Amino acid sequence: MAMDMTFLGTGSAYPSPHRGASALVLRADGECWLFDCGEGTQTQLMKSQLRAGRITKIFISHLHGDHLFGLPGLLCTVSLNTNADLQQKPNCVDIYGPRGLRHFLRVTLGLTGSQLLFPYAVHELEPTPDQCPEEGWLNLEVTAERGPPHPQEQPGRTISFDVSSDCYFLFEDKKFAVKGFRLVHRIPSFGFCIQEHDRPGRLKTELLKELGLKPGPLYGRLKAGEPVTLESGRVVLPTEVLEEAIPGRKLCILGDCSSVLGEGPLKLCNGADILVHEATLGNEHREKAVDHGHSTPEMAAAVAQACCTRRLVLHHFSQRYKPSTLQKEGDEDNMSELKRQAEDALQDSGVEVTLAEDFMTLAIPLRRPR
Amino acid sequence: MAMDMTFLGTGSAYPSPHRGASALVLRADGECWLFDCGEGTQTQLMKSQLRAGRITKIFISHLHGDHLFGLPGLLCTVSLNTNADLQQKPNCVDIYGPRGLRHFLRVTLGLTGSQLLFPYAVHELEPTPDQCPEEGWLNLEVTAERGPPHPQEQPGRTISFDVSSDCYFLFEDKKFAVKGFRLVHRIPSFGFCIQEHDRPGRLKTELLKELGLKPGPLYGRLKAGEPVTLESGRVVLPTEVLEEAIPGRKLCILGDCSSVLGEGPLKLCNGADILVHEATLGNEHREKAVDHGHSTPEMAAAVAQACCTRRLVLHHFSQRYKPSTLQKEGDEDNMSELKRQAEDALQDSGVEVTLAEDFMTLAIPLRRPR
Repeated sequence: MAMDMTFLGTGSAYPSPHRGASALVLRADGECWLFDCGEGTQTQLMKSQLRAGRITKIFISHLHGDHLFGLPGLLCTVSLNTNADLQQKPNCVDIYGPRGLRHFLRVTLGLTGSQLLFPYAVHELEPTPDQCPEEGWLNLEVTAERGPPHPQEQPGRTISFDVSSDCYFLFEDKKFAVKGFRLVHRIPSFGFCIQEHDRPGRLKTELLKELGLKPGPLYGRLKAGEPVTLESGRVVLPTEVLEEAIPGRKLCILGDCSSVLGEGPLKLCNGADILVHEATLGNEHREKAVDHGHSTPEMAAAVAQACCTRRLVLHHFSQRYKPSTLQKEGDEDNMSELKRQAEDALQDSGVEVTLAEDFMTLAIPLRRPR
Repeated sequence: MAMDMTFLGTGSAYPSPHRGASALVLRADGECWLFDCGEGTQTQLMKSQLRAGRITKIFISHLHGDHLFGLPGLLCTVSLNTNADLQQKPNCVDIYGPRGLRHFLRVTLGLTGSQLLFPYAVHELEPTPDQCPEEGWLNLEVTAERGPPHPQEQPGRTISFDVSSDCYFLFEDKKFAVKGFRLVHRIPSFGFCIQEHDRPGRLKTELLKELGLKPGPLYGRLKAGEPVTLESGRVVLPTEVLEEAIPGRKLCILGDCSSVLGEGPLKLCNGADILVHEATLGNEHREKAVDHGHSTPEMAAAVAQACCTRRLVLHHFSQRYKPSTLQKEGDEDNMSELKRQAEDALQDSGVEVTLAEDFMTLAIPLRRPR
C-alpha cells in the first residue's frame, strides 16, 4: 500500500505568502487524512496535487488558531465542490481534536449558515488537568458545546485519557490503529501515533505446490491466518507456508510542544518510521521557545532519539525563517542552521533529519520483513 | 485628503490561488477600513502594499464564511505583529456587522485562547424580519452571545433599523458619516454608505487682502464658518470670502445581494462616486444567481443606474471566472464578457464600469466644487 505525507503549511503563528499555517496530509491508498488545518489550508490544497474531497479524517492537535482557523472554510469548500458530483462526497468526515472543537465547528458553521452536503462527527480528546494547569479557558464554560448542533453533525465520542497506557485510543480499522498522546504546551496539545497493522508475508508458492495445493481460495485462507486441511488429512499451518510478516509502518505527528508529557508517548512512538516534530525557533532562542510552549531543533532531536525514530521531520518554523529557495546569502535566520542544530544533537544516532517545506511530499516506503 | 480603495479578494464562495475571498480596504489619510474578511485576507494584506496594523474599523456585510472566516486570524496576526512596537497598536478596533458577529468572535477567539494586545468592540446591526424570512438561523438562540466575553472585548452597540430613513446609523466622525442599508440575500446582508463631509472652499485671499485682513487666526475662523468683525466694525461673513464648498465623496459598498431592499438604499447611494456591487455570475446564469441571492452584471448595472452613480465597480466573481491575466483564448467564462454585459445595460448613462481584480487600487479623487 502506497503511503506518503505532504506538508501544506510549515509556518508557525500565522500563514504568510511564503509559508502556510500548519497542515499536513497523510495519504494511504488514495484516502487522505489531514493533520491540523490553519487558515489558508484549502488554498494550499488547491495548489497541491491532493484533492480536498478525498479527506475522510481530520486530526486537530490543539485549538490555537494557526492550526484551526482553516477548518470551517475547508469543510464548506469540500461541500461546494462535491455538489456537482454527489458520488464523490465523503460518507462522514471524522474529526478528532481537543475538547471544545465540537463547539467551535457548531458555532462557526451555524452562525455562517454553512450548509454541508455530508455529515461530520467530532470526537473530542478530554485533556487532563495536569496538561496545562494554569490556563483558565480549560473550564467547561468555554469549551462545552451549547446551541443547536449543525444539521450534518453526527454524535461524536468523548475520548478519555487511558491512565494505564498513558494515551488515548482514537480508533482502529482494518489497516491502522491510531492513538493520541499528551504534550506540554500553553493549551492542551496532542500528538498522534498512526500504527499500520503488520501484514502477512508472501506465500511460499514452491512449497505449496510441493504440498499439492493449487492457487485458489485456500491460498487466501492461509494468507488470512487460517490453517488448511489437505485431502490427505495433513494440516497446513500458515506459519509453515508464509514468509516473514511485513511489519506495519509507524508515523508520529506531534502538535506544538516544549516536550512530551510522561513516558507513555516515548514508548508509543518507539521505532517510528517518521516523527514529525515542531522546531519553531533555533537553539539560540531556547528560552523564548520554551516560554511559548515550543521547541528548538535540539529539543526535537532529543525526542527523536528517545524514541529511536528513523527519520525526524521538522516543521512549524517561525515566519522569520524563509524557505531555502527565498533565502539570501547572509540572512541571519537560516534554515540550514536549524538542520545543523538537529543533526549535531543526533550525531552517530543514525536518525535522518529533514526540514519540511510547503508542498514537500515524503514517500513512506514499506518496511522490510524482520 | 487622499483616498483610495484596494481589492484584496474578488472571488465568491471560497478563496482560490487566483482569486481571494471577499475583502477590500478603503484608505483615507493612512487609516484603513476593511470591508469583509474572507479566509486568507491576512495573507492578501501581506502581499499588498497595505499594513494590517493600520486597520481601525472593520465592516462585515454578512456572516457567510467567504466574508468572515479570515477575521479571527487577521485580528490575531495584527496583535502578534504589534507586539514588537506597542506604539503601533490600534486604540480599539471597531467592528460592524450583523447580529451574531459578536458571538462568532467571542467563541473563535475564546476557544483558541487567542490573546489580543488591543481592545475591540462589535457593533451589531439588528436585521429586520422581512430581510430573510425563511431562514431559521436568524433566531436568537443561534446569534445571541453566550459564554464569557474575550478579555479585550469592549461593550458594543446594538444598531437598530431606522424605519423613517430606511437605514442604519453606524457612526459619524469629523470626516465621515457612515450608514448601513438592507439587501436581499439568503441571510441578512448589508451595504455600507460612506459619506465624506463637505469641506469649505478656498479662501478668496485677494478679497481678504482688500478688506485689510492678513493671514492668521482670523483666516482659520472664517474657514471654520465663523463670521469675523473688523476693527472698522464691518462684519465679514464666511460666504463672502470662501469659494464654493468642496462636496464630500460618497462610496457605497454592497454585500452579497440579488437586490437592495426598499427605496431607502437607492436614495442613500444617490450620486455615489463609486458603487461596489457584486456580479457573481454572467447574465446567462441569472436564474441561478437569483436563487443563490446573487446578481449578474445587468442586475448590478440596474442598481448603479437607479442611484446615478458615477462609477460601478464589479467584484465577487464566481471562481469559474479567471483573472484576465490567466485567461486563455476561447475560455468560456470570460471576464470581458461580464464587463460588456454591464456596459450594455448602462449604455448612454455615462456610468463607468470597472472589474475589480485582486490587488487593484482605485484612487478616489476629490470632487470639484458644485
